[in-house]
Amino acid sequence: MQVKKLGERGIISMIHRMQSSPPPGFVGIGDDAAVLPGNTAGWLISQDMLVEDIHFRWDWATPEQVGGKAAQVNLSDIAAMGGRPVAALTSVAVPARTSSEVLESLYRGMTRAFDPLGVVILGGDTVGSVDRLVLDVAILGVPGDHGPALRRGARPGDRLLVSGRLGASYAGYMLLSHGTSWPGNSVDDRSVLTAHLDPEARTRLGQAVGPWVHAMTDVSDGLASEVSELTQFGAVGADVRLDRLPVCRATQAIAARYGTDPWEWALFGGEDYELLMAVPPSHVDQVLNVGRVMGIAITDIGIFTDAGRTRWLDGDEERVVDGDRAFDHFSR
Amino acid sequence: MQVKKLGERGIISMIHRMQSSPPPGFVGIGDDAAVLPGNTAGWLISQDMLVEDIHFRWDWATPEQVGGKAAQVNLSDIAAMGGRPVAALTSVAVPARTSSEVLESLYRGMTRAFDPLGVVILGGDTVGSVDRLVLDVAILGVPGDHGPALRRGARPGDRLLVSGRLGASYAGYMLLSHGTSWPGNSVDDRSVLTAHLDPEARTRLGQAVGPWVHAMTDVSDGLASEVSELTQFGAVGADVRLDRLPVCRATQAIAARYGTDPWEWALFGGEDYELLMAVPPSHVDQVLNVGRVMGIAITDIGIFTDAGRTRWLDGDEERVVDGDRAFDHFSR
Repeated sequence: MQVKKLGERGIISMIHRMQSSPPPGFVGIGDDAAVLPGNTAGWLISQDMLVEDIHFRWDWATPEQVGGKAAQVNLSDIAAMGGRPVAALTSVAVPARTSSEVLESLYRGMTRAFDPLGVVILGGDTVGSVDRLVLDVAILGVPGDHGPALRRGARPGDRLLVSGRLGASYAGYMLLSHGTSWPGNSVDDRSVLTAHLDPEARTRLGQAVGPWVHAMTDVSDGLASEVSELTQFGAVGADVRLDRLPVCRATQAIAARYGTDPWEWALFGGEDYELLMAVPPSHVDQVLNVGRVMGIAITDIGIFTDAGRTRWLDGDEERVVDGDRAFDHFSR
Repeated sequence: MQVKKLGERGIISMIHRMQSSPPPGFVGIGDDAAVLPGNTAGWLISQDMLVEDIHFRWDWATPEQVGGKAAQVNLSDIAAMGGRPVAALTSVAVPARTSSEVLESLYRGMTRAFDPLGVVILGGDTVGSVDRLVLDVAILGVPGDHGPALRRGARPGDRLLVSGRLGASYAGYMLLSHGTSWPGNSVDDRSVLTAHLDPEARTRLGQAVGPWVHAMTDVSDGLASEVSELTQFGAVGADVRLDRLPVCRATQAIAARYGTDPWEWALFGGEDYELLMAVPPSHVDQVLNVGRVMGIAITDIGIFTDAGRTRWLDGDEERVVDGDRAFDHFSR
């Protein structure tokens, strides 16, 4: 069936069937606006948009992967504030020829990411599009008891910690753009393709480490850009150890295949959705322990300083890294 | 300058310059998520998307008009809940070749609508697009003291009141699609082109009548569809007087020009952004008085009944009107 025939009411019923009911006090899809009950802690809110042929391609990703990634990208923003995600609004622009199965898979990707976390889609919009699908998700969460973990707050002496691995998403992107499709031809391929097509936000990690960090952000635009955000917002400098960046074996192998330095992908690749934290020395052990309990690697990659600038160190040598060179949302 | 060169940080600075600062307790654009302070009344939240060549065309509307309409469409959803709009998130997908002036005008259209109402853009996303611009706005508001005015709640005996005029937006759309461009060739043309290109949500009216209504919605999808929503949600019937529909002189004249019955446009045209209310007889005078004070016509077009169905009346005759035939978001 075409989406056009399903109609807006059909789409709303479909979403109702797919997810748990909203918690008491919430009014979800179906009215002019959703209603969120009052809470004294306040709300975190963020919005991220994915555009066909810019952020995803149908010959690379399934509709469920695209929906899942849209959800995870937004979950990552709440994780980066140390918050608990609660509700989402989803807007989709779909070409009228699109089959309702595609739309259903797209929403299934979102509800599969949201439902286990208790996140409910409360509303949004479904509209036509001439030729490309656009998906925009707004997410709401509540901050932890210590308040939101902002980008500002890093102090000289804080350690710079990062979760998981860097550059893997870009390695996956490189494979896809050179003709390798999911799941690839090896364990390495599959590992980085998963990082690119099925990323998982650090939702529970963000909440667990929130109380221990001075500042936090996610690594959506590449490490160089995110370090630059934390130092600028905190008015501090940093010494970052390039030789300690967590670049996984698969990413190293694929970088070697394309004759590229994998640091390039870790620093500028983007879309890793890891958490980057400024942690006071007295709390580093707690954060490392949270990582151990959750089975998520957490790596100490440097220290914030009062030097007023960031030094990128490879052993004894300083390298030039452009902190203004972020993942470019206008190209690809 | 191209948007690509302006970059995401340039765009954020641009928005900062254009609008007032967020109220105390809010953290706006620049972090992973915005922070909204707690309130005991809860929040209203809605999201609406506009797509180039579906909802707007650059040969018909200026970027400022498109931005303004995106803002008003969202404000209308909060008005329909009787709420006060507070904050917005704005996501824009723009082709890389777009000039930064276009993006600036688009945002100016939004801030000109939002700023006088105290609504602050707290975040969002700016991304690339292959060839068409997409604008998605999420809006947050607080309900009135009596709680949100929902679609459900109409009771038999309630009067059916509607603000302003119906069908004018579609009359404007007809002119545009037949080659007349803004501001048209007559006072009539200008009036309906304004309704289509520069609609104004009933933001203050919605807040003022909120305490007096049993149910309320806005008329974004045509009167037939919205009456059907109020009767279905309220499990009531209605007698609607077609001969009392507020169709303005300009809309009548333009309908005559195209040999169409203007009721067709009022019932199925969509995008009027008026308010449709179920008002108990004891409160009708208060609502009419609010309209008089604000200079907004409010028309009594019928009554809710326990008949279990809706009758569309023209004098003594009943006409057939398809309540399931809403404004079609997948065509145009």
